[in-house]
Amino acid sequence: MNKPYHLVSRDYHALDEEVYVADDIIFARRNFCVIAGPCTVEDRVVIEETAHFLAELGVKMLRGGTFKARTSPHSFQGLGAKGLKYLRNAADQCGMKTVTEILGEQLVEQVSEYADILQVGSRNSQNFRLLSLLAKQAKPVLLKRGFMNTIAEFLSAAEYLAADGKRNIILCERGIRTFEPMTRNTLDISAVPLVQSESCLPIIVDPSHAAGRTDIILPLTRAAIACGAQGAIIEVHPQPHKALCDGKQSLSFKQFTSLWKNIGQLTQALEIERV
Amino acid sequence: MNKPYHLVSRDYHALDEEVYVADDIIFARRNFCVIAGPCTVEDRVVIEETAHFLAELGVKMLRGGTFKARTSPHSFQGLGAKGLKYLRNAADQCGMKTVTEILGEQLVEQVSEYADILQVGSRNSQNFRLLSLLAKQAKPVLLKRGFMNTIAEFLSAAEYLAADGKRNIILCERGIRTFEPMTRNTLDISAVPLVQSESCLPIIVDPSHAAGRTDIILPLTRAAIACGAQGAIIEVHPQPHKALCDGKQSLSFKQFTSLWKNIGQLTQALEIERV
Amino acid sequence: MNKPYHLVSRDYHALDEEVYVADDIIFARRNFCVIAGPCTVEDRVVIEETAHFLAELGVKMLRGGTFKARTSPHSFQGLGAKGLKYLRNAADQCGMKTVTEILGEQLVEQVSEYADILQVGSRNSQNFRLLSLLAKQAKPVLLKRGFMNTIAEFLSAAEYLAADGKRNIILCERGIRTFEPMTRNTLDISAVPLVQSESCLPIIVDPSHAAGRTDIILPLTRAAIACGAQGAIIEVHPQPHKALCDGKQSLSFKQFTSLWKNIGQLTQALEIERV
Amino acid sequence: MNKPYHLVSRDYHALDEEVYVADDIIFARRNFCVIAGPCTVEDRVVIEETAHFLAELGVKMLRGGTFKARTSPHSFQGLGAKGLKYLRNAADQCGMKTVTEILGEQLVEQVSEYADILQVGSRNSQNFRLLSLLAKQAKPVLLKRGFMNTIAEFLSAAEYLAADGKRNIILCERGIRTFEPMTRNTLDISAVPLVQSESCLPIIVDPSHAAGRTDIILPLTRAAIACGAQGAIIEVHPQPHKALCDGKQSLSFKQFTSLWKNIGQLTQALEIERV
Repeated sequence: MNKPYHLVSRDYHALDEEVYVADDIIFARRNFCVIAGPCTVEDRVVIEETAHFLAELGVKMLRGGTFKARTSPHSFQGLGAKGLKYLRNAADQCGMKTVTEILGEQLVEQVSEYADILQVGSRNSQNFRLLSLLAKQAKPVLLKRGFMNTIAEFLSAAEYLAADGKRNIILCERGIRTFEPMTRNTLDISAVPLVQSESCLPIIVDPSHAAGRTDIILPLTRAAIACGAQGAIIEVHPQPHKALCDGKQSLSFKQFTSLWKNIGQLTQALEIERV
Repeated sequence: MNKPYHLVSRDYHALDEEVYVADDIIFARRNFCVIAGPCTVEDRVVIEETAHFLAELGVKMLRGGTFKARTSPHSFQGLGAKGLKYLRNAADQCGMKTVTEILGEQLVEQVSEYADILQVGSRNSQNFRLLSLLAKQAKPVLLKRGFMNTIAEFLSAAEYLAADGKRNIILCERGIRTFEPMTRNTLDISAVPLVQSESCLPIIVDPSHAAGRTDIILPLTRAAIACGAQGAIIEVHPQPHKALCDGKQSLSFKQFTSLWKNIGQLTQALEIERV
Repeated sequence: MNKPYHLVSRDYHALDEEVYVADDIIFARRNFCVIAGPCTVEDRVVIEETAHFLAELGVKMLRGGTFKARTSPHSFQGLGAKGLKYLRNAADQCGMKTVTEILGEQLVEQVSEYADILQVGSRNSQNFRLLSLLAKQAKPVLLKRGFMNTIAEFLSAAEYLAADGKRNIILCERGIRTFEPMTRNTLDISAVPLVQSESCLPIIVDPSHAAGRTDIILPLTRAAIACGAQGAIIEVHPQPHKALCDGKQSLSFKQFTSLWKNIGQLTQALEIERV
Repeated sequence: MNKPYHLVSRDYHALDEEVYVADDIIFARRNFCVIAGPCTVEDRVVIEETAHFLAELGVKMLRGGTFKARTSPHSFQGLGAKGLKYLRNAADQCGMKTVTEILGEQLVEQVSEYADILQVGSRNSQNFRLLSLLAKQAKPVLLKRGFMNTIAEFLSAAEYLAADGKRNIILCERGIRTFEPMTRNTLDISAVPLVQSESCLPIIVDPSHAAGRTDIILPLTRAAIACGAQGAIIEVHPQPHKALCDGKQSLSFKQFTSLWKNIGQLTQALEIERV
């Protein structure tokens, strides 16, 4: 069978793509790029507090949901436009870059104004119309694997982004749906080397959404580093038990500080740069 | 835990919703409503030939993809606007109603002009922005279960449609992704009685996409009838081996004729009306 | 690829195998054979009460676990040898045949003395040593599909039984493990026609273990009948809420009576004999 | 709900169990114990050649199947008793310990004579009668997770071993069945920290069976080390393309040498002892 992806494959482009975000933020081999922040931008205070905390540690990219994809229409849907501004301001105060999800076609323009990296969430991983629109945006896209997508489907979704020449695509393994209930999803760690072998694109992991619990975020992040992932996106919140969403999987500042140091030692031992 | 769906639940609305399409097409208990047609509108001739064949048998609803959701951007993406017109014309010639998928937000207006039932495909089952837009359309929506979604998520997606008062929603079980390779997906027949118990909305099945092969379409359709499904959507093509997509799961005219008769006998024996 | 099963395939034996249990119990096309009883033989009273109830309705085969396969060693493990006798006596009082599980190699002789049909449970579906031992027993074997097994693996397990010439094998689809939490497992209704197409062996369904809840046993059983299954095994208990195991999925006498009548009407309408 | 396992839980035994095999082989934290060898003992030459190769590198434990669990009865079933002797002799020549699977109840005595570690395979992970028999054996048991078992079920199976006081149990994560076809199974790396948190028992990984391909064995093993696994079991064969089973996932001597060095550097950097 012919592969459904070609432009993102090693056959088409043998060398690793390196995705530039800023002079000191490049998703590339031997770099481990960390994105952190709360699940959602709940209000101005929380996102600013988090940004200042992260920047002081040395984290360079701030995540935060603004238009949220929630299973139920009755759940908190995010602050929307106001959230975008809060996120941008908080990042700017600290010299950070921003990552936020684009939930639908009609939001592409608006979100692209405020975000440095445009995230496509797991539920939109096969929203091909949205992907085609994003293919025309200049900014890097962070594409999450659908929780029920094969690696081939994942790369085919990236192919929609690459169709018009777009190359600054970052892939993200965020766990797949299995029968195991102890974790929210099962982090498919094999996807890291397989994607790197099949494709030229960088791949990071999202241990927070995969695990759905805080106690194994550190070992999962260590596993990702050791097997060659180029980064991670991790949830952190000043008061996880009060978070409006995903509090169970958000690290506290104390927990994140400990993780940050731990992975710093690991990356150093492996001669990888923690970005 | 509170249920993430309320407006589509039995708690909110105890009686079955009956979805009106035409005076002689109502999705309701004791009716088994059949939608048939090719996976995609390939050209004018194929869709007209199919429409005439189906109308003569007594089938009242014609399906056909126009803007297609394909895993790879390199696969045939459908005829687009031209396909919509061919579908409409073919149906009008035979007095049939049309069903076609709305692939993205920007297509809502255009497709709504030509289709009598607006289909949301499996990959868009959690495209919440699209669902919210469709909530404002007057025409019935046929919502497919995501192949990766639980029944609770399926009903929550319907809740997005119902959020603004929309009631004419038809649900469709089309198979879930499992480890079994003999079928494309696994038809979750339990979803039929479970959805009917949890929700007031009608539910039909899609044995063609579930099975991904023709030889078990008949037994699956019979199972659906016997356990109370309110209809089925079935792929049929004049020359399945030449179909541009999903030929493996498309019945030939001869096979469909045989199925149509067989289920006619079954519905008659069970005092259900085959629509 | 060569198929891993041959002796149980249509290629080897084109005609349906008919499995004889008694003159009036033959697992064959156009017959729908019902096995019923409690999950486990809890004491003499419960099994006798159930046997008398079932026999009066017309049910001919009594099930009941004696040596039980429980996930935890701390759960009730069954009455063992005493349970076997209770089951046999209860059945004999009512002229019924017995079905019970053989949990391990060392129990083959003992259980074979008391049971008319030797059941292999889902967790032992790939216990190849046990299967090889059972291949030498004269009595019919009821082989359940492993909840983690593909249809090809299921038929390969049957192949171990058939390896030495054994032909009286009854297959049982009992649900596979998926991500859907509303049911204990997902009844793979497609397995019925697929097994009948691939193999010459009869196949029945176990809606009780698949669903893990009582409210959809009837629609699942009706689906099985309509798509050609040759029987069903259903849990029934005088007082389900007091059952030592699987009470949630056991029908009460009243519920079973209603199911029995309902499927009697369906089989009659379809000219199938309810056995 | 009460947990179905207790004796193997942290609640019962807070400290890590350390499993002794020899003075220089202890499954414990800060040790990474490697078991290697061919899928099956094909003949005397292959197993001796492999043993000499491994021993020279410094590997201390030799694996090799003798009575094999094969999906089809028509596949090679192993050399049986002869294989046990070959394995023992090869190991003895090189001062190695042996690991082989016990396929059924009737083989417990025989295999226990020749093997230093008694393996229970994935398909027997819920063969409770076999587990109960093994609970009475003095030698360490290596219990593989069923490819369709939850972690709770996995620990409950270990509970059957622990029921009579047995403590020298080594757990093995070997991949679970998911929808992803690029790997044979999906290595559930989260199981490593979760099992270590829930239970006091050591856990190793089997990247060979999980991946079903050689090209990602190294990154998976590195991931396991970094997240705290206490060992790995890896397939190696002098001529993988000629192997009677699982050749696709067996490393050649050259590949294994490279892996051995690579993980030696990693364990050294992390101050873990490679055993």
